Parts: sequence; C-alpha cells; structure tokens
Amino acid sequence: MNAKDTTLDAEALSYHSEPRPGKIGIVPTKPHTTQHDLALAYSPGVAAPSRAIAAAPDDIYRYTGRGNLVAVISNGTAVLGLGNIGAAAAKPVMEGKAMLFKTFAGLDSFDIEVDTTDPDDFVRTVRNIATTFGGINLEDIKAPECFEIEARLRRELDIPVMHDDQHGTAIIAAAALMNAARIAGKQTTALRVVINGAGAAAIASARLFLKLGIPAQNLILCDSKGVVSTYRTDLNPMKREFATSRRITTLAEALLDADVFMGVSAPGVLTPAMLRTMAQNPIVLALANPVPEISYEEALASRPDIIFATGRSDYPNQVNNVLGFPYIFRAALDVRASEINDEMKLAASRALAELAREEVPEQVLKAYDIDHLEFGRGYFIPKPLDPRLLVRVSTAVARAAMESGVARKPVTDWKAYERELADLLR
Amino acid sequence: MNAKDTTLDAEALSYHSEPRPGKIGIVPTKPHTTQHDLALAYSPGVAAPSRAIAAAPDDIYRYTGRGNLVAVISNGTAVLGLGNIGAAAAKPVMEGKAMLFKTFAGLDSFDIEVDTTDPDDFVRTVRNIATTFGGINLEDIKAPECFEIEARLRRELDIPVMHDDQHGTAIIAAAALMNAARIAGKQTTALRVVINGAGAAAIASARLFLKLGIPAQNLILCDSKGVVSTYRTDLNPMKREFATSRRITTLAEALLDADVFMGVSAPGVLTPAMLRTMAQNPIVLALANPVPEISYEEALASRPDIIFATGRSDYPNQVNNVLGFPYIFRAALDVRASEINDEMKLAASRALAELAREEVPEQVLKAYDIDHLEFGRGYFIPKPLDPRLLVRVSTAVARAAMESGVARKPVTDWKAYERELADLLR
Repeated sequence: MNAKDTTLDAEALSYHSEPRPGKIGIVPTKPHTTQHDLALAYSPGVAAPSRAIAAAPDDIYRYTGRGNLVAVISNGTAVLGLGNIGAAAAKPVMEGKAMLFKTFAGLDSFDIEVDTTDPDDFVRTVRNIATTFGGINLEDIKAPECFEIEARLRRELDIPVMHDDQHGTAIIAAAALMNAARIAGKQTTALRVVINGAGAAAIASARLFLKLGIPAQNLILCDSKGVVSTYRTDLNPMKREFATSRRITTLAEALLDADVFMGVSAPGVLTPAMLRTMAQNPIVLALANPVPEISYEEALASRPDIIFATGRSDYPNQVNNVLGFPYIFRAALDVRASEINDEMKLAASRALAELAREEVPEQVLKAYDIDHLEFGRGYFIPKPLDPRLLVRVSTAVARAAMESGVARKPVTDWKAYERELADLLR
Repeated sequence: MNAKDTTLDAEALSYHSEPRPGKIGIVPTKPHTTQHDLALAYSPGVAAPSRAIAAAPDDIYRYTGRGNLVAVISNGTAVLGLGNIGAAAAKPVMEGKAMLFKTFAGLDSFDIEVDTTDPDDFVRTVRNIATTFGGINLEDIKAPECFEIEARLRRELDIPVMHDDQHGTAIIAAAALMNAARIAGKQTTALRVVINGAGAAAIASARLFLKLGIPAQNLILCDSKGVVSTYRTDLNPMKREFATSRRITTLAEALLDADVFMGVSAPGVLTPAMLRTMAQNPIVLALANPVPEISYEEALASRPDIIFATGRSDYPNQVNNVLGFPYIFRAALDVRASEINDEMKLAASRALAELAREEVPEQVLKAYDIDHLEFGRGYFIPKPLDPRLLVRVSTAVARAAMESGVARKPVTDWKAYERELADLLR
C-alpha cells in the first residue's frame, strides 16, 4: 500500500467515525414538535392514511415515503475488490450507496444487510420486506448467485429491482462504447468486442451490447481460463450464452484485430503486446479497480491511437456507476415503473453518450478544477458532478419506461417534470 | 364519526401527502458535495472501514450508523385499533414511530414492513436483516404470535429487541400504578389488580406487575369471556400463566373490592355500577383507545375518590408509550445492551413515576398551554413533551442495564453521558 492510499484510508476512517459514526441519518420531513403535530403524525391521526391504504393499496404512494425510497440491499458476498467480507462489513459501502442516491437524485435510500448466502433465503427475505420500498438496488452480491437472485426478484416483485454491479457498469460501458466508436470512426454495430472477465458486470455488459446491436458473433468473452468457447465443458449457463465457436483459446488470440477490449477482471492482464495487435483506434475500457488491466500511462505509450477509459476518478473517462443508478431509479420511481427493463437501460446509455458530446458548462469545469473539456479521446463520458445528468438521464429513462409499457404513472407534462427534477437538488 | 374526527382525518391526510408524501427522509450526515468527499464516503475510501469491520466486527459501531439505528418492524396484523390491515397499510404508523424515535431520543429509526403472517417466516426475515440495525422495535403484531416472535428474536439476536405493544404499555402502566397507589395511600405490593383484556399489552403488564411485587394471587385477568381461571379449558399458554383458582367468572365479580382496574380492551366495558363496588380510592387505567372502557366524565361522576388515567392525550394522565420506548432504546443502544430485560423496564417505570412527583418546569406548562401541574389525582404520569424525560429515563435504564450485566459498553462518566443526552435534542 503506498503513502497516498494510507492517507486516504486514515482520512476515510476518520470521516466515517467522527464526530458521530456513520454517514446517513433519518429525519422528520414534516412538523413534529407540538402535541398537535404528533397527533397527526402518529396516533390518532395516522389512522386516516392507514385506513386509506387498506382501502386503496396505491394510496401508499400518496401518504408514505415509499414512492421516493430505494433500498440498497447486499449480503456482502462480493464487496468492492474485497470479496466475500460478509453482511456486517458491507454496511459502510451500502450506507455510501444510499448517500449517493440522495446526493445525486434526491432519493431517500436506506441500506439493508442480509445475513445469508443462500439465494432462496435471500430472495425470500427481500420479497418479505419489499412493501417497505419503492425500488430495490441489489449490490455486491457474488456471481453466479446474483443472476438468479435478481431474476427471481424481478419476476416476483412489481417494483423496480436492479443489481447495480451488473447493469450499472453495463450501462455506462455501453455509453462509453457508443462515443468511443464515434471517435474511432466506426459503426457500433460492426464492432468486434472482447470482454475479459465473466462475472456480474461482464455478463450484463455482454447482454446489453447485444441489445445495442453488436452481433453475437462479434462478441468474445474470456474468463481466467481463456476464451469462453463452445469447446469448453466447464461453463455455467451465463457463460454458455456467449460461448464462441471460433477455434481460439487465449485472450491474446481473441484480441487480434479486435476493435474493443473491455476488462472487468484483474490488474495488468492486458499487455502492450496484445494491445498492439488490436485494430486501428482500439477502444479499451480497463475497468479493474483500483488497478486496471493496463495502466493509463502504458496504454497511451503503446498505442497513440488508443481510446481509453478506466474505472478510476483520477484519469480521464471514468466508467462510474454513479452516472446511472441514481437517475435510473429516479425515473423508475417517478413513473412508478413495474421494472427496469433493457429499453430503460439503453435509454440511460444513449442519454449519457449524447450529453458527453455537448458543450461542458463552467460549473463542471470548476467542480473538477480543469480549464477545458471537449468531446474527444480525453472526454467521452460525462463527469459525475455534471448537474445536467439528473434531468437528462432521468427524462430519457422515464420516456423509455412509458414507451416500453412499464410506466404505471406516466409523465404528462414533460416541462413540469424537468422542473421538478431540477428543483430536487436545489 | 363526529366532526372533530373528520377534521382530524382530513388534516392528517393532508399532513401525510403535502407537499411530499410521507414524513421521514434519509439525509447525508457527512460532507458529500465534492469529488473528494465522495471518494471518502464511497469507493475507494469506504474500503477502509469495510476492511476494519471484517477484521474486528465491533468496529461496525465505530464506522456505521448501526449504533444509533432502531428498526420499527411490523407485519400489520394488529395496527392501532384497526386490526389486521396488512403490511402496506401499516407503513404510515411505522414511519410515525420512526419519527418519534428521532424526535424524542435523537435515534435514527427506519420502518420495515414484513409481508408475512407466519411467525417462522417473520422471525427468519427479521433475523436475516438484523445486522443492519442496533436495535429492533417490534410493532403492531397480533397476539398470540407476537409473544413467540419476540421471544425467539430476543433469544436468537444479540441486540435489543422489544415488542412495544407489549412492554411499552406495561412500563407506563407500571409507572402509573406506583404513583396512583401512593396517591391512594396503598402499598403497591398489596394491590388487588384486575386486568381486562388478554392481548399483548395485558399479558406484558401482568408479567411486569408481578416483577413490581404484586402477588400473583392478587392479579385477575379477564378476557372477552370473563375471568381467566383454572376452570377454563380454552386458554392459551399466556393466559394460563395468570389463571386464577378463585371461583369467579365475570368482570363484575372480579372487581368487587379490587384496588385496580386496568383495561386494554374495549369501549364502555367498565360500568359505573362495577366501579362503585371497587375498594376505596380505586385506580382505573382505562386504556382502550380512542374510546376508553369508561369515559373520563362518567368515571369521575361515579366515584369522586377515583384515580383515573386513559390512553388519550386530551384528558389528564395519558398512558402513552412515547414516554418509554425512545428512552429505553436510547439507553440500550448507548450501553450496547445485548437485550432489554425486566430490570431495564422497571427502571424506566420507576424513573417515570419519580419524575411525575417532581416540580413541573415552566416549559412543560407552556407546551401544553396549562397554568399549573402538580403531583396528585390530576397529574401522576409525566407529559410526553417534558424535556427532562430523555436524561432521566435513559440514565436510569442505562444504569439498570449495567447492574443487570447486559451492558457491553458501560457508561463510565455519568455527568458526560447526561450532557450528551441533553445535547441530542438541541
């Protein structure tokens, strides 16, 4: 661990412990100081909204916080780069995610740590408490259980459920891919893509890339044993979905003439030699964090024509989930979507890609203390503190929810909705 | 429904829906606006507290909100006077309770609605999410399931678990009983007590009264079928605990020469005729809500020597759970108690009784817009907005937790603890 990391650790520990432990709190949002206030908030007044909901279940969105409330739920089996550290140790991360929901989208969000590694038990627990929440963000659950857990909860619940480790990364990566292809002067639908890693984010990205129009035969998945091919007998169903029939076995072989390398894998696995065999203007999303598949410095030194993104905030083009989940859940809850479907995810990707191609407002430059940002190799993914994100991504996702038929409370006045969104963070 | 109720209902509905639905929100308690703030709160900084907790589980109290966090958990099977209205319709009540925890004791509190009526399923669900919370307040769960649910969760979890419908009422009723006995000039340990109702609050009160020193043979329980006696064959185990061998069958017979009537039952079941057969200075806690077992007016007209309390805020001597649960959980979490035991409950009762016998500060009179309050028939239970409650009850409960050996983080400097408590609501 270097000195910079040690300092960050110390600062993070003090941030989390001082002056009081933790970083989120729960507060009354209505008057609560007089006897009369409390007679409205609790007994006897509270009987009225309870009776109303008993008579008309949808009134829960009218009289409680459910419609603005997202649960961040984890069992701590795949936390950051730390692995299976358990439910308790996952709590700081989940509280952090809850904080991000509020900070970026004005959503109330609360963490739930579920102390079980059994998918059945996990699903039953989450299903039993789902009435509490307007949406459920699953987080840091290990593959392959995460696929079954998310699929079952999506099927069994009528509120939005999204496992962000899968789809968050996929959505931002898809946005990056669209813009990078444009910079490379290539059609997205003609890209030859290699995804290294076969965990939650890799599988979800592969699935979303297909929806983006990338042909299945152009997509190669690699895991720690090499190319995921139909000749292998050790594949789980998710990997089998993407097995190639090409007679290749190594990442190096897969990368020959490829347009895109996306890594959600391990530090240093992409060598300069491999990089040099890729097609012109190679697109590299090296998302292993904190140490990417190839360092920024090495990547740019190896290929001056590279179009490069990482998962790190201290280099250009960060693929950061925070560009997606706050706005996706914001829109999903606002239109009371019954689910978060592929159309909504792609709408988020497209809105992000589009935003990065527009002029960057002064406020963003100031937030990052930079002089200039302009669409191109150095900037093709929006910055997380860009205040335009909330309105742009949320309206796009809301529209997609309506067009795909999952919105139960459609937006009727878009101008008013945009104003509401803009006001949320004021 | 009379005009006053209709107005309250309308006002409560608008309170809950305007300007935004609900009444609690989740907010960041640490800096969260710059890129650096977010690097501490979330990735990469958050890895440090997560690693710390993985290495030393107790560090969860150092780096997360767990130590100040109480869950309010219900399945909606016995909500207020509304009965089994289900998990969703219970949400306004649970959010209200969460608001009270914050308002009265500075505790962060969050509601969880559990959508199951099966005790096994309920217990498993709550156990699975318990790591999230520092304490668990069970609420509005119907009898007799509530007894098994609370008992199992207390046994299986090492954090404080309390079903407030049982113990909240019992604790305040015990305080009322001690002071009422003093006013009546009777020894608590000689009181002959009749409890009408055999639900959660009745059973818990009966149990606590025994701990208070009331002899078992002086305690008669009545349910809707009359006296709970050993001659009956329809008793559940909880009722059997209190079955009398006296050859009486009706409430009226039970009340002959009794010192105390406590009703947690139904409107109007205590008649003036019955009341007149009770002993001198009869103590009546008529807690059915909103319509008590006998009205204030009728009670006082029937017996000028009556010592009378209800569950209503608009008459003297309200037995209100809010006098207990905020401070009991406050203390339990502060000393990191492994449970809330009888010693702690009795300490709360005694602290409440004592406080009511002291001079009332100006601030309390102002909050209730009254000229004078003095210990006696008109005032023997503290008022909920009395600012002395937090320090007085919490320190008493903390001390009892330490003396009974369940405090894992004992208070060492009582003056400092009192200051901390006083500062919480500033």
